Amino acid sequence: MNQMTLEKINVLMNGNIATPAGFTAGGLHCGIRKKKLDLGWIYSEKPATPAGVYTTNLFQAAPLKVTQESINTNHLLQGIIVNSGIANACTGEQGLADAYEMRKLFAEKMQIPTHFAAVASTGLIGELLPMDAIRNGITELDEKKHQQSERFENAILTTDTKEKGIAIQFEIDGKVITIGGAAKGSGMIHPNMATMLSFITTDADVEDTALQDALRQITNKSFNMITVDGDTSTNDMVLVLANGMAENKTLNPDHPEWDVFLKGLFFVCQSLAKEIARDGEGASKLIEVQVKGAETEEAARAISKAIISSNLVKTAIHGADANWGRVITAIGYSGANLDPNHVGVALGSIDVVANGMPVSFDEGEAKQYLMQDTVTIYASVGDGEGEATAWGCDLSYEYVRINASYRT
Amino acid sequence: MNQMTLEKINVLMNGNIATPAGFTAGGLHCGIRKKKLDLGWIYSEKPATPAGVYTTNLFQAAPLKVTQESINTNHLLQGIIVNSGIANACTGEQGLADAYEMRKLFAEKMQIPTHFAAVASTGLIGELLPMDAIRNGITELDEKKHQQSERFENAILTTDTKEKGIAIQFEIDGKVITIGGAAKGSGMIHPNMATMLSFITTDADVEDTALQDALRQITNKSFNMITVDGDTSTNDMVLVLANGMAENKTLNPDHPEWDVFLKGLFFVCQSLAKEIARDGEGASKLIEVQVKGAETEEAARAISKAIISSNLVKTAIHGADANWGRVITAIGYSGANLDPNHVGVALGSIDVVANGMPVSFDEGEAKQYLMQDTVTIYASVGDGEGEATAWGCDLSYEYVRINASYRT
Repeated sequence: MNQMTLEKINVLMNGNIATPAGFTAGGLHCGIRKKKLDLGWIYSEKPATPAGVYTTNLFQAAPLKVTQESINTNHLLQGIIVNSGIANACTGEQGLADAYEMRKLFAEKMQIPTHFAAVASTGLIGELLPMDAIRNGITELDEKKHQQSERFENAILTTDTKEKGIAIQFEIDGKVITIGGAAKGSGMIHPNMATMLSFITTDADVEDTALQDALRQITNKSFNMITVDGDTSTNDMVLVLANGMAENKTLNPDHPEWDVFLKGLFFVCQSLAKEIARDGEGASKLIEVQVKGAETEEAARAISKAIISSNLVKTAIHGADANWGRVITAIGYSGANLDPNHVGVALGSIDVVANGMPVSFDEGEAKQYLMQDTVTIYASVGDGEGEATAWGCDLSYEYVRINASYRT
Repeated sequence: MNQMTLEKINVLMNGNIATPAGFTAGGLHCGIRKKKLDLGWIYSEKPATPAGVYTTNLFQAAPLKVTQESINTNHLLQGIIVNSGIANACTGEQGLADAYEMRKLFAEKMQIPTHFAAVASTGLIGELLPMDAIRNGITELDEKKHQQSERFENAILTTDTKEKGIAIQFEIDGKVITIGGAAKGSGMIHPNMATMLSFITTDADVEDTALQDALRQITNKSFNMITVDGDTSTNDMVLVLANGMAENKTLNPDHPEWDVFLKGLFFVCQSLAKEIARDGEGASKLIEVQVKGAETEEAARAISKAIISSNLVKTAIHGADANWGRVITAIGYSGANLDPNHVGVALGSIDVVANGMPVSFDEGEAKQYLMQDTVTIYASVGDGEGEATAWGCDLSYEYVRINASYRT
C-alpha cells in the first residue's frame, strides 16, 4: 500500500501489526499444516488494554471462550497465540482443555501471567488440535528466529491467497500514535459480528471501556459490512491491544482528539475488512456497494448487505454482466421499506436505473467497467438520511471448486 | 412419477394441470424466445374459484398487479395466460399497460370477461414485452393445435431443464376429486412467498376464502421452504383455480373431509416445490433438510432454511464431502435459540454429530450416500415440538456458468 495522507492519517509503506511501539509478532511451522506456517504470535512489551468482539454463532469455538476469560480477568493482555489449520470448534471439553493448555504454554514461554494471553484458532471445525504439534511449536518458538510480521500474517491464513497487514500513524497530544493490524478471512465470511480473525495493535493509551465501545461501533461499519458467502463462522474474533507506549494522555470520548483516534481505528478496520472481501474464496474482484437515501442507517445496511450477499449479483459481476435487474431484486427483498419508483442504481459512473426504471446505457462501456478489479454499485433508494457501505466479492467457479473439496 | 398410494391419494401416471375435469392447457411459440415455446395458457370450461399468493419483493412485476385486480374484481377466474423470456418487471406504466393488454386479448380470444383472466410473466427483468409477438401469439393461439399440457409446462420454463407437472386423485363426498399442477423455477429461488410460477387446477368445489387460507398455509410449508440461491424474485406467484366440476359439496373447514382436500393440495404443492428445488440452476441433486426438536415451528423453519441456504453446505454436498461442520455452523447462526450441546446431525442414516460433537463415521460410506441424487440432512436441535422440512439443491460450477452469462 502506498504512503498517502487521509486527513491527518499516514498509511505507512510496509507498515504492519508490529509497527506500533513495543509490539513484536512472528510465526512458525509447528506441523498442523503440511508446510505452511501455522502458529503465530503477537507480543507487547507492556501489558495492553484489550478490546474484543466475537462471533454471534451459538457454536462459539473454545479459544474464544478462553480469550474472553483472559480479558475479563483483569482487562489486560500482553500476548496472543494463534493457530491455523484446525478451528478447535465443536470439540467439547477436550477442546476447551486444549485451548487452556495452549494459553498456559504460551504465557509461560513469554513469561507473562496466564490471563495476559489470548488464544485464537482458525481452520477445520470438529477436529481436536494436534496438541503435540502445538506444544512443540510453542517450545521451539524463538522470538528472534521467527520474529517477523509477515510470518505472523502468513501463519494465520487458511484458504486466503495473500497476507493482510497495515499500519497507520497520526498525532494526538503532539505524540505520534501508530495503529497496526493483521487479518485473515477467505470463506465462511458474513460477519455478525465478524467472520474472520483480525488483530489490531496500537501504542496509544486508551481507556478500557472507551476502546471496547469504539471497537464495537467501528466493527459494525467495517468487519460487519463484508460478506463472502453469507456464512458466519464459529471462530470469528477481532482483538485490539493498546499498550500506551506512545505516552499520549489516556484517550476516551472526553479527550479533544478522541475523534482522530476513532478515525484511525476505523481506517485500519475498514482497510482490513476490504482486504478480506477482496481475497474471498475464489474472488477475482472487490465489490463495494454504497447505499444512500434510506429511511435509516439500519435500512441502508440491510439493503447494502442484501445486494452484496446476492449470489445472482455476485455471479453477474463475475461475468462482467450489467444485470441491474438482480440489484433491483435484492433491494426489493432486503426487508427495508422504500418506494420502488424512487430507486436509482449506478455501476461506477454509469447510471443503469432511475426512478425504478431502466436507463439506456452503453453495454460495452459497462462491461469494461465491470472487468476492473474493483467495482462499485451505487444505490439511491429515496430521500432519507440512511447511508451504508458494504464490501464483498464475486462468486466464481473457483469458489465452488475450493468448497466442494475443502476437507479432502 | 409412478402411480402410488399415499393414504387416500392416488398420484396419476402422466397426470398434469389439465387432468382435472373441465381444464385445458397448451403452449406455443410467439417469438419472445428464439425457438422454445414461450406463451402458455390454462382454461377452465367453468369460471373457477381462485386463490393466489404473490412475491413479497417490493418490485412486484406488472402482471402480478393485473392478476390481483382480476381476482379481486369478482373472485372468479377462467383462464391464465403466461409468457416466458421477459418478466415485465421494472417496466413502469408501459409495462402495466402491456400486462392489461395481454389480459384483454387473451380474454377476448377465450370469450370470457376480461376480469376472468390472469396474467403471469417470467424471464428478464427491465425489458418491455415484445407486444407484437404477444399479440400475434394470442391471435394464432389455437385451442386444438396447441393444446397439450406438456406444451404449457414447456412454454413457462426459463433456465429450467425439465417440465414439472403432476396430478393426483382422491375422493370427497364419494366423488373423485382431481388436483393438477404445473410449475417453473430454476434461479432467483428463495420464496417468501414463492420464487417461481406455479399453477394448480382442481375440479373440487371449494369456498373462496377457505381456498385462499389453505393456499397460504400450505405455501408456507411447501413453496416457501425451498431455496436455490436465496434470491426472491419480482414475479413469483402461485395460482389455484377450483372449478367445482367434481360436484362435491362445497369444501370449507366445516366439511368433514376438508383435511383430505388440504392433504391433497399440500401433496401437489410439495411435489412441485421439490421438483423446482431439484431442477435449480446448475443443480445435480435435491437436498432435503429435516429439522426437529426446535422450540417452535418458526425456529425449525429458520434452522432448516439456514442450512439449505448455506453456500458452504451446498458446495460440500456438490463435492460429496461430509463436511458437517458447515451444517453445525449454519444451525449456530440461524437466529434460533438452542443449546449447542443438544444438537445432532445425520446425513441419511449416518450419524455425524451427537450432542454438538463429532461422531466417528465411515467417510467412504458418507461419500457414497452424498453422491445419490437425493440427499437428506437431519438435524435434531433439542427437545422442542418444532419441526420443519426445507428443500434445495447443490451449488455447482454450472450455477456460476449460467448466472455469469444469463443475459448474453
